[in-house]
Amino acid sequence: MSVGRRESEDRGMGGVWPEAMGLSVCIRDGIWAFYPFMTAPQSGYPGKLIAVEGLDGSGKSTQIYLVKRWLENQNCRVYFTEWNSSVLVKKATSKGKKRHLLTPTTFSLIHATDFADRYDRQILPLLRAGFIVLADRYIYTALARDAVRGVDREWVKELYSFAVKPDILFYFRVPLEVSLNRILDGRPELKYHEAGLDMGWSADPYESFRIFQGKVFEEYQRLSEPGGFVQVDATREIHTQQEEVRRLISDRIDLAAFRTAGRGWS
Amino acid sequence: MSVGRRESEDRGMGGVWPEAMGLSVCIRDGIWAFYPFMTAPQSGYPGKLIAVEGLDGSGKSTQIYLVKRWLENQNCRVYFTEWNSSVLVKKATSKGKKRHLLTPTTFSLIHATDFADRYDRQILPLLRAGFIVLADRYIYTALARDAVRGVDREWVKELYSFAVKPDILFYFRVPLEVSLNRILDGRPELKYHEAGLDMGWSADPYESFRIFQGKVFEEYQRLSEPGGFVQVDATREIHTQQEEVRRLISDRIDLAAFRTAGRGWS
Repeated sequence: MSVGRRESEDRGMGGVWPEAMGLSVCIRDGIWAFYPFMTAPQSGYPGKLIAVEGLDGSGKSTQIYLVKRWLENQNCRVYFTEWNSSVLVKKATSKGKKRHLLTPTTFSLIHATDFADRYDRQILPLLRAGFIVLADRYIYTALARDAVRGVDREWVKELYSFAVKPDILFYFRVPLEVSLNRILDGRPELKYHEAGLDMGWSADPYESFRIFQGKVFEEYQRLSEPGGFVQVDATREIHTQQEEVRRLISDRIDLAAFRTAGRGWS
Repeated sequence: MSVGRRESEDRGMGGVWPEAMGLSVCIRDGIWAFYPFMTAPQSGYPGKLIAVEGLDGSGKSTQIYLVKRWLENQNCRVYFTEWNSSVLVKKATSKGKKRHLLTPTTFSLIHATDFADRYDRQILPLLRAGFIVLADRYIYTALARDAVRGVDREWVKELYSFAVKPDILFYFRVPLEVSLNRILDGRPELKYHEAGLDMGWSADPYESFRIFQGKVFEEYQRLSEPGGFVQVDATREIHTQQEEVRRLISDRIDLAAFRTAGRGWS
């Protein structure tokens, strides 16, 4: 529990002290109440959020990694976070998956818990602290995958309604067959849920994966329709895509403002 | 993954096979798709759900235990489930609490995961199988506690929207002071979250617990207003309350229909 005193205009509360896990509000001398960040889905933080989405094999992780390197080389304050990486529920997720204990609802909720943990304790505090946060997969991965598993789309959307929209959301678009070939060419061992085997579409992991990815692809299409997705043609050379991505980031974000040294010396 | 063939009218789907974790729908010969129970919040199952809610110290656990005994002695098919008891996230919850890693949002989500796990794999399958399910605390505990922790009430309500409403929901109502005295008289060791210490209202666990319970009490009042709660005056003798509870259950549920032996021989 943080104790301190700082005026802030956050959500119209007076005497607010933002801290990593939420807001502590001074009730009386020495006594602070704790509030979550839940009700602040609009951006306007000092930091910027850049997220990448796309099918497995779309090359999005490579692209966001190259962005990270590029920004670090410019001494920008950067924080990188990836899907399904919170330590809080890591073991529960692993156990649930291994023992096939997860229903679509608990699969959805355990991933939401993972995301919320990273969101409350990393993403949001760092956006507040003026970092450029890079997210390899964001809530759209959950919206797509959960919908494929038959979970009500509106329910999942509401579930993730606490999360701010990215300032830039790249969608790396490849034809389904291209992404499938990229992943399956080496005949890798596919994990049970990764292949969508929990859905019973096919007993063959490769066939199941194809069906699963096809459905995820359709969900991404559905999600991208209302706009907001910056579509990148991910069939092209890596460096061609990266140039386009960097250009767009430079256009939309004043990178000079995020440099730890040499602010203004671009 | 269950494979089978049974016609069912569930949700207007044809060829549906209900199983413990959801619905598997035959797509083509031998291939079954899996659907969650999420979109069926209305009752109408062969079983009945009886839930008890109330403050710590309201005596609700004693009352539901006596109901369980009473029903078992009549050879009724009974299943008992209690709050925060799923093995799926037990360790994660315990670790998160111990290390004070939980934010109000993740606190809420991890309890929702716990509930959803019990719901999908126990409560709903048993309601479908014609059991009387007894729940010591139900979603209203989450609605009350999460609201007290500052989580948006509408968000939590939506989060638990997949859960059926109980056929009978008892609310054991005691004045706040009575419940506090019952709990605190022995000066028990209060756990960090149990006492609401994560909220920083007071550094003294007993004082914090009083504040926390007072707020939960207010939330219960708010929840009970739209009706649906059967209010039981829980200041009375245990047997007096139990008589009233049993009478109400007998009035509303045809218990003879739930007897494993001697159906109709009451």
